[in-house]
Amino acid sequence: MSNFSEEVEATGHLIDSRIISRIFEKIINLQGDFQIQEIDIGKMKTNKSYIRLLITGKDENHLRTILKEIYREGAITRIRKEIRIELAPKDCVMPDNFYSTTNNHTELYHGDKWIDVENMMMDKCIRIKDNVASCIPVRDVKKGDEIVVGDDGIKITPPELPRDKGGNIFEFMGSSGSSERPTQHIAKKVADDIYDIKKDGGKVIIVGGPAIVHTGASDTVAELIRLGFIDGVLAGNALAVHDIEYATLGTSLGMNVHDATLMHHGHRNHMDTVNAVFKAGSIAEMVDSQVLKKGIMYECVKNNIPFVLAGSIRDDGPLPDVTTDVVEAQKKYKKVLKGANMVLMISTMLHSIATGNMLPANVKVVAVDINQPTVTKLVDRGTWQALGVVTDVGAFLPMVAQSIRKRKANDDI
Amino acid sequence: MSNFSEEVEATGHLIDSRIISRIFEKIINLQGDFQIQEIDIGKMKTNKSYIRLLITGKDENHLRTILKEIYREGAITRIRKEIRIELAPKDCVMPDNFYSTTNNHTELYHGDKWIDVENMMMDKCIRIKDNVASCIPVRDVKKGDEIVVGDDGIKITPPELPRDKGGNIFEFMGSSGSSERPTQHIAKKVADDIYDIKKDGGKVIIVGGPAIVHTGASDTVAELIRLGFIDGVLAGNALAVHDIEYATLGTSLGMNVHDATLMHHGHRNHMDTVNAVFKAGSIAEMVDSQVLKKGIMYECVKNNIPFVLAGSIRDDGPLPDVTTDVVEAQKKYKKVLKGANMVLMISTMLHSIATGNMLPANVKVVAVDINQPTVTKLVDRGTWQALGVVTDVGAFLPMVAQSIRKRKANDDI
Amino acid sequence: MSNFSEEVEATGHLIDSRIISRIFEKIINLQGDFQIQEIDIGKMKTNKSYIRLLITGKDENHLRTILKEIYREGAITRIRKEIRIELAPKDCVMPDNFYSTTNNHTELYHGDKWIDVENMMMDKCIRIKDNVASCIPVRDVKKGDEIVVGDDGIKITPPELPRDKGGNIFEFMGSSGSSERPTQHIAKKVADDIYDIKKDGGKVIIVGGPAIVHTGASDTVAELIRLGFIDGVLAGNALAVHDIEYATLGTSLGMNVHDATLMHHGHRNHMDTVNAVFKAGSIAEMVDSQVLKKGIMYECVKNNIPFVLAGSIRDDGPLPDVTTDVVEAQKKYKKVLKGANMVLMISTMLHSIATGNMLPANVKVVAVDINQPTVTKLVDRGTWQALGVVTDVGAFLPMVAQSIRKRKANDDI
Amino acid sequence: MSNFSEEVEATGHLIDSRIISRIFEKIINLQGDFQIQEIDIGKMKTNKSYIRLLITGKDENHLRTILKEIYREGAITRIRKEIRIELAPKDCVMPDNFYSTTNNHTELYHGDKWIDVENMMMDKCIRIKDNVASCIPVRDVKKGDEIVVGDDGIKITPPELPRDKGGNIFEFMGSSGSSERPTQHIAKKVADDIYDIKKDGGKVIIVGGPAIVHTGASDTVAELIRLGFIDGVLAGNALAVHDIEYATLGTSLGMNVHDATLMHHGHRNHMDTVNAVFKAGSIAEMVDSQVLKKGIMYECVKNNIPFVLAGSIRDDGPLPDVTTDVVEAQKKYKKVLKGANMVLMISTMLHSIATGNMLPANVKVVAVDINQPTVTKLVDRGTWQALGVVTDVGAFLPMVAQSIRKRKANDDI
Repeated sequence: MSNFSEEVEATGHLIDSRIISRIFEKIINLQGDFQIQEIDIGKMKTNKSYIRLLITGKDENHLRTILKEIYREGAITRIRKEIRIELAPKDCVMPDNFYSTTNNHTELYHGDKWIDVENMMMDKCIRIKDNVASCIPVRDVKKGDEIVVGDDGIKITPPELPRDKGGNIFEFMGSSGSSERPTQHIAKKVADDIYDIKKDGGKVIIVGGPAIVHTGASDTVAELIRLGFIDGVLAGNALAVHDIEYATLGTSLGMNVHDATLMHHGHRNHMDTVNAVFKAGSIAEMVDSQVLKKGIMYECVKNNIPFVLAGSIRDDGPLPDVTTDVVEAQKKYKKVLKGANMVLMISTMLHSIATGNMLPANVKVVAVDINQPTVTKLVDRGTWQALGVVTDVGAFLPMVAQSIRKRKANDDI
Repeated sequence: MSNFSEEVEATGHLIDSRIISRIFEKIINLQGDFQIQEIDIGKMKTNKSYIRLLITGKDENHLRTILKEIYREGAITRIRKEIRIELAPKDCVMPDNFYSTTNNHTELYHGDKWIDVENMMMDKCIRIKDNVASCIPVRDVKKGDEIVVGDDGIKITPPELPRDKGGNIFEFMGSSGSSERPTQHIAKKVADDIYDIKKDGGKVIIVGGPAIVHTGASDTVAELIRLGFIDGVLAGNALAVHDIEYATLGTSLGMNVHDATLMHHGHRNHMDTVNAVFKAGSIAEMVDSQVLKKGIMYECVKNNIPFVLAGSIRDDGPLPDVTTDVVEAQKKYKKVLKGANMVLMISTMLHSIATGNMLPANVKVVAVDINQPTVTKLVDRGTWQALGVVTDVGAFLPMVAQSIRKRKANDDI
Repeated sequence: MSNFSEEVEATGHLIDSRIISRIFEKIINLQGDFQIQEIDIGKMKTNKSYIRLLITGKDENHLRTILKEIYREGAITRIRKEIRIELAPKDCVMPDNFYSTTNNHTELYHGDKWIDVENMMMDKCIRIKDNVASCIPVRDVKKGDEIVVGDDGIKITPPELPRDKGGNIFEFMGSSGSSERPTQHIAKKVADDIYDIKKDGGKVIIVGGPAIVHTGASDTVAELIRLGFIDGVLAGNALAVHDIEYATLGTSLGMNVHDATLMHHGHRNHMDTVNAVFKAGSIAEMVDSQVLKKGIMYECVKNNIPFVLAGSIRDDGPLPDVTTDVVEAQKKYKKVLKGANMVLMISTMLHSIATGNMLPANVKVVAVDINQPTVTKLVDRGTWQALGVVTDVGAFLPMVAQSIRKRKANDDI
Repeated sequence: MSNFSEEVEATGHLIDSRIISRIFEKIINLQGDFQIQEIDIGKMKTNKSYIRLLITGKDENHLRTILKEIYREGAITRIRKEIRIELAPKDCVMPDNFYSTTNNHTELYHGDKWIDVENMMMDKCIRIKDNVASCIPVRDVKKGDEIVVGDDGIKITPPELPRDKGGNIFEFMGSSGSSERPTQHIAKKVADDIYDIKKDGGKVIIVGGPAIVHTGASDTVAELIRLGFIDGVLAGNALAVHDIEYATLGTSLGMNVHDATLMHHGHRNHMDTVNAVFKAGSIAEMVDSQVLKKGIMYECVKNNIPFVLAGSIRDDGPLPDVTTDVVEAQKKYKKVLKGANMVLMISTMLHSIATGNMLPANVKVVAVDINQPTVTKLVDRGTWQALGVVTDVGAFLPMVAQSIRKRKANDDI
């Protein structure tokens, strides 16, 4: 059996980040065997833990399968191996055995040293170019690109869950998303996270759907932008059209947002708004010509906050500002997300899942929606660090803003 | 064909209350025929409309079927007929052809004059006793009771939808219940309705589930009771246990309501609370002995607001205050509901449907839940006057309370 | 007051299609006045009804507002007026007062005769070119195009709801979409509709999401295509990738579809599938090279059934076959939808709403999803002719297929 | 620090049942310290694992808190201690420090030996009477009863998750309940479980709501009872009324179940059914007098399958067979559930949660509902062994029955 064994080790907050549990479970699930060669459980907060295991498979193939699984949980082989590289056979085609990425921090053993992989996202490949390793999607692969294959020489570091309680909403709640939580408190915690991140010079991005406008929360979002708490807005055509309809005509799909009455023939306002933007030329020109004087899009333009409107097949119009090619829209989204510390996903499954796919695992994500299955889907789809909040955005966002204003007022004194 | 015809008439706000549309549609759906003999559409607001129709069926049976249907929509035959009565054959058994009630205002032609039926609820029978007609459930029927059978001599008046816009939330929104509505505005309108009804000396009842406590809204409900805006609380065991757990231990099923953290082994708090009430003897004794010092149940006891806790098969305990027999609980619910002008149903499908079944159609109902299918079910189940609000009660109720406080502060000046 | 009056008339199945009710209600809601000048209710099935009304407003403006509303419900003015036309001021910009379309059959009074508007969709404008009127989206408007403005000379005919019961699922069910319906029976009725439409030489289109594959229903859809019951498939990248992953590797996002177990590291299969299609060059080439040998996409290619994969911001890849520009994708969708008699929308809100926006009101739509709010949203968003079915597609579609096979077996004898 | 340490041990399938992970996590979460004194990981399938840990707290109190938590996960102290007992101070009142049960298999160290606790349920207390330990609810506590207090001398054995894959649906699926699973396969697996349990002489109970009838699945449930696969039916008034309405009149709340059409004035059928049962005297008498000739309730009566109808506040009637006192109904439910191996919970949150509270953790539970939040709630509420299936019961149950018939046909040959 000794031929089909290999030693692996893992370091970090193995227990509280559940890394050790997941490694054990993966081995057992694959019916592999293991012996704990060394275990050193770190003291609270300061020390890290260390574990060294001897993994044994039934045959070479079985062993490889087990190793492949546990590598992805943060274990690494003790035998230091150089990564393997193959050339892309043609544009947009990866070598068959390409290494498919996770969204965790990833290092490669290349040229006798460990190098970081840049731009981590899940389900992509890794390209080496000019000694820089970066994560790229299949459509960016060019014939002849050096693509990492197999699992040798790859080290993954799952994000550590903080040990200390109380300071951060992400520490104490499961991410599953239940509606049976104290809403006011959660709003306060989300507000604190936004405030603290901005105070530390961090970057907060909003991904939002048109329900922000329907539910009467657009004034709140506009205010957060004006006050400097938002560094980018990712959305689709609908959010922009509804926001501008509300800002110019007071309605959202013909419903008066201030009193919930329906205007007669009000849906026309929606199409009038689309036409008005085309007439102005663009949202920015609508602001310049003082036709658009408030709202989310207005604040973005006025405060130089980047926004990307990604086209979708259901768009009315879409507006001239919409990036109608989705591959191009993905690139623009990624650019805005670069370096983000926190992403607020509000009432849009489409754009939220898209954004989730682009984020490294260490970015904080709060997904807010009134429909529990939507939140569950978001959280399940790999963005496991997401905090799901099942609530009504029309009530939740004003509470968040109120808390932020309070913090700001205290600090301004 | 003339043998199978009969003239009917209807009076009231036939058009805006959709009565005329429903009568037409019923006849057509049943493949009956009709001629408009006279039609007089009322001017706005002041006058009522009147219509006289000649209904024709294919045979006597067909005609009767059509008439039966349109009677329930408010049409009445021109031939004044005395109601028919049969005796209940035994306890809890109605005569076969018993008249099954709607929840609309109902009159009987009895002894050559129209008399009102008291205590209207849907799906019950009508008993005549000492010249008083009242709506009673099957379990209250006693052998020999005089029960109305057939459809002769019965006049129904559906509630009129007000023509004037803007004063009342029930006027401008469909009752279907969508989450895509401006939450802050709806909260304000609900607050206005509560405030105005109380100002006019009306009666407001809350039907509530334990999510009120989980979502952190119990302080709000307790405040509304203390301020005198609530005249009765209908609930189950869970609301009371969670409320008392929160009031005495700060948790709801072991979750700290103020910061959403989970206490270790916290579910024990739930059972400790049940035990504590049994130890005190009852909720009122727990208040008297100053063990229970705040919360929804506390305010009910202190302010002499009646509450009924209806038992259910899933109860832990249940508390000594719970009415464990459901038929008895129904009687107690009805007593509290007597004369109510508005019922707020909050996050409890079970108790809300129960209450809906007991209400006449002219009582205002607001059903609040985060789960859209729950709201839809409530509204569909015959309480068509219900306004469905799909929102997060933990955020919505504090908004309602804030609006009420503002109105009160203005009036108190 | 006589100066602010105008006579309108309406013809058709005014009562059972609720047209008359809607006209009355609109006038009353707008606080207008009306007198019935003539009313002739059609006998069952054969005759149409006719009504002539004198509408009175408080002033000219009020009258116009009322007329505008009721024109959209099928009323037309008795004063025959030529439509008004203005020129588009620039590309993608409609004249300010452009007539915004409904999805109903629409005629224009132009050059002293009524002409049909082609390609009806809602929320678009009407262009006259070479004496042909057609409905076009804002992005297709070219500078100088003749665009219909105002409401003069426009006649709308809402689809008639059939009077006869029993033959057609669309006749007897409200479209609201409840899960509390007899599933087996509804499946049979949907099957009958598909079968009857195809027997009459009609066209049936499927709009589908990836849940078709996850829930194990893709064999069923593939079979329906192979048997000739489907004339087009509209979807996104995900359906195609999942279908091909399942066809080539047996999994859907790494879950073995035949036994619901999760493959280890199975999500890789998803990315391998994307790569495999790029390697082949396209789905068709993958079929030609016999790498892809079954499934929905395979059957489309083999049977020359057109399919359109519309790109979205959340796509992995996306596949080379995906139309990444959404405006172009909309054009391709419309081409496939041209002349469709029935559209089955399955588990995809995005593509279903997109498709709904492109359909005239007389096309049958069945929207199937397990999430009630999704179905409600679809049905509410203007495609009011849609039948919503809240069910599990993994169980529902096999039932539909079984019924179709039975009908076919009977007919084949 | 040595004064605040204690040795604990755990035996069993510690890793694959996640026991060891949970113990580690609890200690770390409580900021305790531990050293692994001995660890022996069992080989596959045959051997059990063993672990011995030295737990250290900051002080005595901290240590006790940690121990209390990990005892509930299956750890036991190495210091054998006799349980502690206190007397109940009055009827329905437990001693303050009562031991609150889990639903896991529990043993007590009493009189120098380990004895099993009978009738395990969660959130109850343990009474010792005549040397028998049993789990009882608070309302069964009598003054002077010997009740277990504290945590000494208590050993919990969490159910082991089987290591072997493929034989059993409970082995390979998370219990979270997603609608994106292959329905046909899951139906087959549930069918296999029912079939295998019955073949082994086991006991299967159905807990069901009225949607069984609405969705057209009642014939299926009736058939399963007739064929001997169901050993008890737990429900409320509504299931019985709907079932009997369907069996005698063909409708469910007035909807014709065979074609989904609505009968005119059909809701009357519901009340007629209630009256018919009162007239007969009871459901059994209705069967005896041959008025009731098919359906779920009929099959229960005919095949002597016990059924319990628990009353609820929303009941129409309720039927004479309904147990209107909920505490009595709980006792009857428990009696039917005694010794059950599998419980199918179908479309009823109320009765399913009630039943879940009464079950030991080793009973298989399948919870089927179309509404995902309902399934999530069921599974979250402590019955963690539950398999959630988000599907349409009207389609799912017929598939289950078809698989059972196939298995039976094969075995019958």
